[in-house]
Amino acid sequence: MREDGARRRGPRAGESGTRSSIEAAARSLFASRGFAGTTVRMIALRAEVDPALVLHYFGSKSGLLAAVVDWTFDIDRARSEILGRSIDGIGLRLARVFLRVWDDAGDAHPILLLLRVAGTEPAAADHLTRLLRERLLDPLWPAMASAYGPELLPPDPAMRGALLASTLTGLALTRYVLRLDPLSSAPAEDVARHIAPILELQLVRR
Amino acid sequence: MREDGARRRGPRAGESGTRSSIEAAARSLFASRGFAGTTVRMIALRAEVDPALVLHYFGSKSGLLAAVVDWTFDIDRARSEILGRSIDGIGLRLARVFLRVWDDAGDAHPILLLLRVAGTEPAAADHLTRLLRERLLDPLWPAMASAYGPELLPPDPAMRGALLASTLTGLALTRYVLRLDPLSSAPAEDVARHIAPILELQLVRR
Repeated sequence: MREDGARRRGPRAGESGTRSSIEAAARSLFASRGFAGTTVRMIALRAEVDPALVLHYFGSKSGLLAAVVDWTFDIDRARSEILGRSIDGIGLRLARVFLRVWDDAGDAHPILLLLRVAGTEPAAADHLTRLLRERLLDPLWPAMASAYGPELLPPDPAMRGALLASTLTGLALTRYVLRLDPLSSAPAEDVARHIAPILELQLVRR
Repeated sequence: MREDGARRRGPRAGESGTRSSIEAAARSLFASRGFAGTTVRMIALRAEVDPALVLHYFGSKSGLLAAVVDWTFDIDRARSEILGRSIDGIGLRLARVFLRVWDDAGDAHPILLLLRVAGTEPAAADHLTRLLRERLLDPLWPAMASAYGPELLPPDPAMRGALLASTLTGLALTRYVLRLDPLSSAPAEDVARHIAPILELQLVRR
């Protein structure tokens, strides 16, 4: 419906269609060839636009990456699975959700794409940090407080949240990028059981 | 002495000198311009050799990166500081050594250079994994067993070692690459105190 509405608007429809075509081309090429293996020219060719237009709309290849990589993870949707009936076991439940989603998505996981290029592309590092904060850390504590009562939560949520992000990005890096065994080849459930106590150190007041 | 000896050997001295010049040029350029910002041509120019020689000796820019990045960390040298008098507090001592070395080295830390490009360069990921295994994980358990006796160590050292590497690379990524606050801006001692219990979960038999 929204698509149709946009198309009917006339002149702006051209710009919106062009942006969408560029974004779709970039998404597909970044996923299949990686960030470094994709050029602005390839994206323009796939989108059937002039390369100058890509730069006009998105500034740079990094800007385009930040625009197309989104993290559909919504803590409210995974809420009942992660929160459960009590705070007991929250580490294991969070680990299971995390590993299932990442194992299923493989190299196409948007956060993994950002993580891979974050080391060399500051725009990707900024975007990854923003997504971790806005999608994971900011909603986490209020959701836990309303489920369990604030007295079970740790007193220093900012630092604990950052450590939680550190644990999860470290796991993603070793399991999916470095492929360090046995962390890389172990079944998700084994890894979840090992990671759970680490996550609980951050999530639960000691 | 060794340098002089090598130079006197004649034909091989030329090769060894050329390799050293290329490696020195690469180290300096990778540190100042990053991996992506350095080309084989720049390295050849700085080393005053033909670019074809760089590829002849090292195969590719990734091969050269793997050759020049070494981790001087030697668990035997940091041994007394990390092991202490008893296993109690080993997490805090390891965290302090780790943070001091990385905070001091900043962006010039060789492991950080590998970590930055590991996401897009498989050769760098392999090399980083090998260094973590050979310099950190393989010597760690024997050192701890001889210091404390094997009965205090966890029963699954391979998985615990991988989790330790995961925790430390995750910390490096969030503190130095993503710069996620407050983990990035907090004093080393604060971070060490927060990371210590996570490290002890991996290091000590529960």
